[in-house]
Amino acid sequence: MAGKAVVLLSGGLDSATTCALAREEGYTVYALSVDYGQRHRIELERARQLARRLGVAEHRIVAVDLRAIGGSALTADIPVPKDRPAEALAQGIPITYVPARNTLLLALALGYAETLGAFDIFIGANVLDYSGYPDCRPEFIAAFEALARVATKAGVEGEAFSVHAPLVDLSKADIVRLGAQLGAPLHLTWSCYDPTPAGQPCGLCDSCRLRAAGFAQAGLADPALGAA
Amino acid sequence: MAGKAVVLLSGGLDSATTCALAREEGYTVYALSVDYGQRHRIELERARQLARRLGVAEHRIVAVDLRAIGGSALTADIPVPKDRPAEALAQGIPITYVPARNTLLLALALGYAETLGAFDIFIGANVLDYSGYPDCRPEFIAAFEALARVATKAGVEGEAFSVHAPLVDLSKADIVRLGAQLGAPLHLTWSCYDPTPAGQPCGLCDSCRLRAAGFAQAGLADPALGAA
Repeated sequence: MAGKAVVLLSGGLDSATTCALAREEGYTVYALSVDYGQRHRIELERARQLARRLGVAEHRIVAVDLRAIGGSALTADIPVPKDRPAEALAQGIPITYVPARNTLLLALALGYAETLGAFDIFIGANVLDYSGYPDCRPEFIAAFEALARVATKAGVEGEAFSVHAPLVDLSKADIVRLGAQLGAPLHLTWSCYDPTPAGQPCGLCDSCRLRAAGFAQAGLADPALGAA
Repeated sequence: MAGKAVVLLSGGLDSATTCALAREEGYTVYALSVDYGQRHRIELERARQLARRLGVAEHRIVAVDLRAIGGSALTADIPVPKDRPAEALAQGIPITYVPARNTLLLALALGYAETLGAFDIFIGANVLDYSGYPDCRPEFIAAFEALARVATKAGVEGEAFSVHAPLVDLSKADIVRLGAQLGAPLHLTWSCYDPTPAGQPCGLCDSCRLRAAGFAQAGLADPALGAA
């Protein structure tokens, strides 16, 4: 029997699909969102709406002020790159990389899991479209799982934590298809790193463009655009 | 040549000694304190004073609201145990354990280090007096170091992060002696988990008692008590 699971829910396409998958697999889901000072804070409101629609047992939002550290276009006063050539999206580490972000997100998920007595953590990390983010790779997920087993009271007492990254090898088109199949409320998901002052997706940042390409390749219309 | 190092500086005896040691070894120190909603918030003020006295290049305080997760006497509305028998201090995992705290602290240190271009992180974790805290053990430190090497841009580019826990095997008495030898401003350090309303150490929590025993075994008077 699947038990309790902590699911990192950012409000984006990947985490919403991951959350729907954890529910489909029978887990009682405790969703965790992190307000880390991201400029696209609208995703947190979407995370709240998604949590309700996805039938989670509980949704918590933890605030961490990563602006005190900076170092990324998402948390510091650095412009978000726009309209980069398609080749560039899959190469190098972009300035939107937030130093150690997934390590931090998983650390918070681990603390929440330990408090709940949960031993499964889900994260929507995905390597193919974001090969530039070191902390989205399978070797990172495996290293965190090894850490979790020695870092916690439950681990010391013999419980094996599992870190699930079910989308890690999927393309964005695969994720769109999977989310749609699972009936995830994709119209509520938010991807844009740099919303317009009117709260619309910019359409030009890497995240908007990867999302658009994913829906196009999956042969589906993006329901979030219809709603906008 | 020692370069830049991020040192986790809580404001306690162990982290102050660790910071003095990193300075002694020639590192340019970037101190990081974390305001995680701890009830003994006075330690953050001490961390500020210690950072100045220890000659760090920079001191940052990152706020993380761990009260949103709870699960510990330090962050939730759970009483701090007082006056426990000496044997109990070295056994089991106490309720003052904050789930995944050191994982989180090191994640923040890693993000800060990556932003700075630093590859050395110091933490005052210490296993002997706190055998009950899983995330103070050498195997935890080693697992985090392995994680850091796959989690970061610098790691991907071949830089090896080192996580130093120079106090990990020392007794509290050894730490007191080392801190005193290094000339660390121990009178500014704060250990108590549950300060009195007047801002004095309670004298009865595990942390006060381990500190008192450490000074007694080292044959030194606690200069913080003289100042109080």
